[in-house]
Amino acid sequence: MIKSGEKTSTVRTAVSVTTAPPKSQDNSASEDLLRRLAANRVAIEGIEPEIDGGRFPAKSVVGAPFIVSADVFGDGHDSIAAAVRYRARGTERWSEVPLEFVVNDRWQATLQFTENRMYEFTVIAWRDLFATWSKDTAKKFAAGQKISLEVEEGRLLIEAAEAQLRSSGAKSEAGALADLIARCKAAESDQDALALLSSDATAELMRQHGVRTNLSHYERILEVFVDRKAAAFSAWYEMFPRSQSGDVNRHGTFDDVIDKLGYVRDLGFDVLYFPPIHPIGKTNRKGPNNTLSPGPDDPGSPYAIGSEAGGHDAIHPELGTFDDFDRLVAAAADHGLEIALDIAINASPDHPWIKQHPEWFDWRPDGTIKFAENPPKKYEDIVNVHYYRDAIPGLWHALRDVVLLWARHGVRMFRVDNPHTKPFPFWEWLIAEVHEEFPDAVFLAEAFTRPKVMKRLAKVGFSQSYSYFTWRNSKWEIEQYLTELTTEECKHYMRPNFFANTPDINPIYLQYSGRPGFQIRLILAATLGGNYGIYNGFEISEAAALPGKEEYLDSEKFQLRSWDFDQPDNIKWDIQFLNRLRQEHRALHDFTSLQFYNADNPQILAYGKRTPDLDDFLLFHVCLDPHSAQQTTFEVPLWEFGLPDDGSIEVEDMVTGHRFRWYGKTQTLRLDPYYKPYAIWRLVRPGVSD
Amino acid sequence: MIKSGEKTSTVRTAVSVTTAPPKSQDNSASEDLLRRLAANRVAIEGIEPEIDGGRFPAKSVVGAPFIVSADVFGDGHDSIAAAVRYRARGTERWSEVPLEFVVNDRWQATLQFTENRMYEFTVIAWRDLFATWSKDTAKKFAAGQKISLEVEEGRLLIEAAEAQLRSSGAKSEAGALADLIARCKAAESDQDALALLSSDATAELMRQHGVRTNLSHYERILEVFVDRKAAAFSAWYEMFPRSQSGDVNRHGTFDDVIDKLGYVRDLGFDVLYFPPIHPIGKTNRKGPNNTLSPGPDDPGSPYAIGSEAGGHDAIHPELGTFDDFDRLVAAAADHGLEIALDIAINASPDHPWIKQHPEWFDWRPDGTIKFAENPPKKYEDIVNVHYYRDAIPGLWHALRDVVLLWARHGVRMFRVDNPHTKPFPFWEWLIAEVHEEFPDAVFLAEAFTRPKVMKRLAKVGFSQSYSYFTWRNSKWEIEQYLTELTTEECKHYMRPNFFANTPDINPIYLQYSGRPGFQIRLILAATLGGNYGIYNGFEISEAAALPGKEEYLDSEKFQLRSWDFDQPDNIKWDIQFLNRLRQEHRALHDFTSLQFYNADNPQILAYGKRTPDLDDFLLFHVCLDPHSAQQTTFEVPLWEFGLPDDGSIEVEDMVTGHRFRWYGKTQTLRLDPYYKPYAIWRLVRPGVSD
Repeated sequence: MIKSGEKTSTVRTAVSVTTAPPKSQDNSASEDLLRRLAANRVAIEGIEPEIDGGRFPAKSVVGAPFIVSADVFGDGHDSIAAAVRYRARGTERWSEVPLEFVVNDRWQATLQFTENRMYEFTVIAWRDLFATWSKDTAKKFAAGQKISLEVEEGRLLIEAAEAQLRSSGAKSEAGALADLIARCKAAESDQDALALLSSDATAELMRQHGVRTNLSHYERILEVFVDRKAAAFSAWYEMFPRSQSGDVNRHGTFDDVIDKLGYVRDLGFDVLYFPPIHPIGKTNRKGPNNTLSPGPDDPGSPYAIGSEAGGHDAIHPELGTFDDFDRLVAAAADHGLEIALDIAINASPDHPWIKQHPEWFDWRPDGTIKFAENPPKKYEDIVNVHYYRDAIPGLWHALRDVVLLWARHGVRMFRVDNPHTKPFPFWEWLIAEVHEEFPDAVFLAEAFTRPKVMKRLAKVGFSQSYSYFTWRNSKWEIEQYLTELTTEECKHYMRPNFFANTPDINPIYLQYSGRPGFQIRLILAATLGGNYGIYNGFEISEAAALPGKEEYLDSEKFQLRSWDFDQPDNIKWDIQFLNRLRQEHRALHDFTSLQFYNADNPQILAYGKRTPDLDDFLLFHVCLDPHSAQQTTFEVPLWEFGLPDDGSIEVEDMVTGHRFRWYGKTQTLRLDPYYKPYAIWRLVRPGVSD
Repeated sequence: MIKSGEKTSTVRTAVSVTTAPPKSQDNSASEDLLRRLAANRVAIEGIEPEIDGGRFPAKSVVGAPFIVSADVFGDGHDSIAAAVRYRARGTERWSEVPLEFVVNDRWQATLQFTENRMYEFTVIAWRDLFATWSKDTAKKFAAGQKISLEVEEGRLLIEAAEAQLRSSGAKSEAGALADLIARCKAAESDQDALALLSSDATAELMRQHGVRTNLSHYERILEVFVDRKAAAFSAWYEMFPRSQSGDVNRHGTFDDVIDKLGYVRDLGFDVLYFPPIHPIGKTNRKGPNNTLSPGPDDPGSPYAIGSEAGGHDAIHPELGTFDDFDRLVAAAADHGLEIALDIAINASPDHPWIKQHPEWFDWRPDGTIKFAENPPKKYEDIVNVHYYRDAIPGLWHALRDVVLLWARHGVRMFRVDNPHTKPFPFWEWLIAEVHEEFPDAVFLAEAFTRPKVMKRLAKVGFSQSYSYFTWRNSKWEIEQYLTELTTEECKHYMRPNFFANTPDINPIYLQYSGRPGFQIRLILAATLGGNYGIYNGFEISEAAALPGKEEYLDSEKFQLRSWDFDQPDNIKWDIQFLNRLRQEHRALHDFTSLQFYNADNPQILAYGKRTPDLDDFLLFHVCLDPHSAQQTTFEVPLWEFGLPDDGSIEVEDMVTGHRFRWYGKTQTLRLDPYYKPYAIWRLVRPGVSD
């Protein structure tokens, strides 16, 4: 509070009568200038999606609905019309889709893009004088007022449209309006003329051809990058090619991988992803379990890239040649699989670039190279490039050319290692450059870091993002995180890829869950997300860990392994079943159609996915407890179908194939993780014969 | 779901090995271009306030804290530094305020502007290599690692800063760093050198002078219009000058108003606002209670502006002359009051502009002028200008000059009638033009319309806005609406003015509430809002209505009235008390400091206002039921002061002056609307002697 004695007035601004001669206002300001200021009379605001004021493109995929919303309104009470304009970037001509009024000055249009490329879009709006005239005149006529003048005013609006068409050379359209004008003039009464002017046909003609009074343009042109579908919907399987010989003493080859393609395809995956396949450094090579004393035959970490055999543009000799690689890519395509490679911008101390381009690296005052570090830890098998200073432009071009090299060998999916430790402008430039030649290239960001950094990487162009999914195990965590991902602004540019495990992450949950936990994390990954993946061993519930760590014991990162995926208790049936479900159900193709539902047991997660028309609607129940059977009452989302709480709906149990009806909104179920920790129901929209 | 037979694959994009020669990538792209793309390495996002991507300025007032927040982060783990840059628009030199890290990559700075004008601001950020070095080296030293090279690297960073200062001519600062470098070189051990390099003094020197590596600029320069304080904190009293003679048969004059200034000032108001004071048209003049058959002496509506005596730039002859008006403005200033005028862009059919500038008006096919209408209703005493076509530039200049004319006669507050029925670009232009000469001009938008339209008017420049307050009576309505206004984005640009009644709004609630209802609406208006107002008659609970309408019976809009505000049961004590409270308590000066608290009776509203330092903290309880006493338990917000639930706090009852302590978070009170429907408590921050 203010103490006594202080001046308490905050509003006693002295008001004085100005006696000085008025400052001359610029009445001579050109009329043109004022007309420019007066443009855009109709307000166009709040466009969604618009990422950071248009700084970044939104994302969509070919053929998917792309919904544009905007607040559009004018002054006064005149009718408004609005449209979304869009075009492929680099082309001239705009296409138009009308915006439809929704509620509270909000308008919406649904676009659908046909090409895998960057598009531009914006919103225009105008005062629709004919619609205003129609609305007002109908009220006056209904109130019994004389409408002779109104009829004349309506006809004049049509004449203006006709004149505009004529002068633009649209003769047949102008003819239709001229005919209407003539009939209007010939009408025997005001009422007859009004009937003509108020017809649906006239409204449609004027909607198309009426003069767009006060045509207003949103102040920015926005962008949307339209990916191919796999950028938003893909199932990944990760393996180390060098472990595919079936013998831990023999280094695997690309031909060994070719032998495994049938297995991966039978599981239902779309993408086969390899950690780096480049020559591995010898200096400071790591031994098994990340030890510092390797034996002479230890293969080292594939992330320590570069030896005398080459760097990021070379293949580790023991894996094969470029010809072998090309054969693998072709064989994968024959199996309906595509290959994803790892882009890891690390160098072993033996990487050729260190000698060829010392200016790309950091050197210390004593002339030694600066190793990677996270003080006080040092990583002496890896050095990092620095990207700026003398690394521009050489390094940037070299790294772009590495990606292009592999793209030219048929690779279109790139998992990028730790992109958050490399500059954002570098990625924005590199991805745009690659998309120039290969718009179908998909980049998956492996950035386990802070949320805004993850989102920034998605904004600058990454097609997919690793997420926190791996560490979201409880019901409230999953509901909260997935609600953020599917409903907040990031849904327009960030597409998570729900890897259930990776060579770097042996989740604590899975270390203690046993087989049911793997089934649980599998169904969550495969059905909550559009993109998901597993790293091999998941199918046999592999979880042997370095004690107290999220690292796998005897990790393939440092040694060869040989796997037997046919051992009893594997979960291959679940993998095949869920991958087939993903393919067959459009409800699962749109990540953002997720909706959580009530189930009163906190160990049972309930959620649904649907197509916009509800023709495909799947309801999921997952027991999050891998140890004990859980029972719950749950809500059947009858309201989504417009059904009352005591209504009934036809249901198909997707696991057993049983069909029956649920009567009433509240039902119960029991899930025993040792039998099957999930249930999947297809709800049949009433009226659909199926 | 997908029917059998359909192609079900969505991800089987054919992958082919490209055999065509690679498309040549532009390796010759100039290094300059790449360096431009590589700029802004540090991400700067999510700046608040930023209105519509920077399309509109935010608002602040002179001397108030202006908080700027932003997400700022780099790649990797280096330390980041950031600052807000700001300058008066039209000046060259930026000032800087450091941004401080808050949480989750969010940074914040508090600015304070000294001048009533438009400012620009933006955010810069850079990699702080010295801070990174300090952090990393401390960890290595703590781990017992050798740090000779690190000491040298730290010194090199200081040498770079010294060189930069020297080349920019900052000799004394460079000298301080040179001294530090010399002492560092002379240190007897690495540990001594590290102590020197790690001192607070060195950190501060390098914070100020360190090289700003990868200096990054936010991509937009944003604006904030800094008003004088009264734009955000003012108490308005509205009267019709023509009703101030004390005799319904004698038209009041400006001199009659001068006689009332003491009364208005004694009530504690800051602003005295008049409906239009211009000549009133005779054609189709309205009679009492908006009838169409006026008597010869009926004065007509002051909103039907314009007669042979002039238009918006003239004074209704019966009120006085420009000299009289100037005397009134000066006398008001002597009373600490300022005059607010009404800008109503309506014309009576007798307005001089209709003949002088027929091109500013709409004409019908039969040559008659188009009256205002809301079909099927017609308003035959008013015509509207149309703003576009031939009205540019003449009408715009004429209307701007009207405002400037009154501003030059000492008026700085303008209540604008129905701005939402005039084009947004017109207001944006007019307000900017007036602010060029009179930055202290305040514009209050009277737009009772849809929410987004109200907000748009605030964005284009209106300083204050009428609101829905008048129709928000129940607890949940008030809590919901005020939470929107004080916490959502609109708080940065829209300042409501809570008028409790107006000549157009005789609220239904007050028609049935009796005197307690007027006290209730008064305290809500005066303490929930920064700006508020009443229209005369409120102080004597005037609520006689046209039956079934929100219109006053015998409204001053159509006839002269004479008022006796000394009648018993007036609420002048409450008005004086609350206006004094507003002046004396800084807690009430920031509209957005509002916080609602729990009170378990839905008829009792509980809320607090505070200064950021809690030195001034007021707690309010208002009984919303004007008919019955209500009792409630309520929460004393002990937690706001860091006190436990069983703590105690000193309290002053602001109505009675009693002082005591509340022990514990839960208390009870009873409010009897026939005694006093509100309670106001000052909570004394522990540790403050008072």
